[in-house]
Amino acid sequence: MHGRNHTAQVIRFGQEFFLLDCGEGTQIQLRKYKVKTSKISTIFISHLHGDHYLGLIGLLSSYHLSKRTEVLQIFGPRGLNEIITTHFRWSQTRLNYPLEFTETTTEGKVTLLDHPQFTVSSFPLQHRIPTTGFIIQEKAGLRSLIKEKLQETELPLEAIQQLRLGHDYLASDGIHYFAKDYCHPSASLRSYAFCSDTTFTPSLAPYFEGVDLLYHEATFMEADSHRAAETFHCTASQAGQLAQLAGVKKLLLGHFSSRYPDLSELLAEAQTIFPNSILSEEGITYPIPSSHE
Amino acid sequence: MHGRNHTAQVIRFGQEFFLLDCGEGTQIQLRKYKVKTSKISTIFISHLHGDHYLGLIGLLSSYHLSKRTEVLQIFGPRGLNEIITTHFRWSQTRLNYPLEFTETTTEGKVTLLDHPQFTVSSFPLQHRIPTTGFIIQEKAGLRSLIKEKLQETELPLEAIQQLRLGHDYLASDGIHYFAKDYCHPSASLRSYAFCSDTTFTPSLAPYFEGVDLLYHEATFMEADSHRAAETFHCTASQAGQLAQLAGVKKLLLGHFSSRYPDLSELLAEAQTIFPNSILSEEGITYPIPSSHE
Repeated sequence: MHGRNHTAQVIRFGQEFFLLDCGEGTQIQLRKYKVKTSKISTIFISHLHGDHYLGLIGLLSSYHLSKRTEVLQIFGPRGLNEIITTHFRWSQTRLNYPLEFTETTTEGKVTLLDHPQFTVSSFPLQHRIPTTGFIIQEKAGLRSLIKEKLQETELPLEAIQQLRLGHDYLASDGIHYFAKDYCHPSASLRSYAFCSDTTFTPSLAPYFEGVDLLYHEATFMEADSHRAAETFHCTASQAGQLAQLAGVKKLLLGHFSSRYPDLSELLAEAQTIFPNSILSEEGITYPIPSSHE
Repeated sequence: MHGRNHTAQVIRFGQEFFLLDCGEGTQIQLRKYKVKTSKISTIFISHLHGDHYLGLIGLLSSYHLSKRTEVLQIFGPRGLNEIITTHFRWSQTRLNYPLEFTETTTEGKVTLLDHPQFTVSSFPLQHRIPTTGFIIQEKAGLRSLIKEKLQETELPLEAIQQLRLGHDYLASDGIHYFAKDYCHPSASLRSYAFCSDTTFTPSLAPYFEGVDLLYHEATFMEADSHRAAETFHCTASQAGQLAQLAGVKKLLLGHFSSRYPDLSELLAEAQTIFPNSILSEEGITYPIPSSHE
């Protein structure tokens, strides 16, 4: 409605591409915005309401028809695997590529992917059916050395390794070497959390405390808060409250009800509580900049 | 690709609206072209390849969310009902409206709907998985009487009924009354046949002999006829041959491979065999005019 489509987000981290949710028409939108779908290695589905996953079978079919051979990982709730296999059983399709499905749970925070540079974890949301959010957290990399300092002192290899990991080093002769003296500060660790559909629950905040960017649904405005409660959704104001509670840096609002053709008031409502709020718009890239501490 | 979407056709007959196939994104396209989806009473699915039915669950969900209460009839192949119930079981959805599913078969021509004004029947196509075409055939209505003739003769009610049905009438006094003398000719009976995906099989022609409009897939051009054969599809030339064999009035080509950005040569190929061929275009209405014999 109003040119808005169902939920789907492409996350790029270096050379890694993920898809968070995959509503109907996602593959059509991905083509429109010239996203190289073949690069997507992993798909995360938050829950089994149609507007969050009904584009999945079409995307998987297209991968098959375009002769994909790379493994595709899918993380999603119980039932998704049965849905996928039911479709492909009836279409008599044996996928050209390996599909690895892992069931998510709503029991606390669970690490789904442990990549050398980042982790992806799920955490429970509160919706009508089992639903998880996802959080992507960058890992500390090795710090770069301050060349001038290194030329002053002769350091053993082991000391350099420890210092680059950000650890201070105690040499056998009793001298302390401090990471902050020998290394540039590490790049700040970026993080992104995704809350697709959820009722307002302050207890969720710890799961995404301090993230750089929080995507949070803001289906309704406060004037329709009874509808939000009935349908297990949030208002813009509630999304703002959660962002504030969790001390996130920026709030990206989404999943707007079609009853609001114009979203400026909805944005204003969130900004009253949490000023650094923006509206998510179709086809736009939201960078999470890497800055120094 | 090239702005073309997956298969879905809305058929309107008087106040009746049907949907033939329902590829991914159909509900989005229906909204775009301002089709009143609530008026659709019956959906016919030809087969379980994604580009012909993956929009169905989304449309059914939207009917539920928009509080539809009218019965929805679905005719489709074995397996479709399992797919539908699997989705709604996992989304914990109990539809607001009655959904009546009837399994189609590929055993000859089968009447699916017998409406006072028309019938809808399925007939087998030849594809990789069980697939049917559909044909909608108008029934003869009552003929209108020629008033002047009626004033000349006093006819019993029973005679009038027979004559209006197009039957001649033999009175008890041995006099023959001929329908053609007392009634205007009936409007010609319109018919439309839909062949979604099929390999070239001349034996299909009798199923849609003489129809006013034949929609037939023309996925490839003759230069790629090996691909057509491998994938159980037709070339434009083969679609033209079938139209000619069946003596249809007009041929509507569709289901074009994304390898052809420009379709003018494909159309020309069909027209070489069957001149009254046209390309189906998204969002366009193709009327089947009612004319007198």
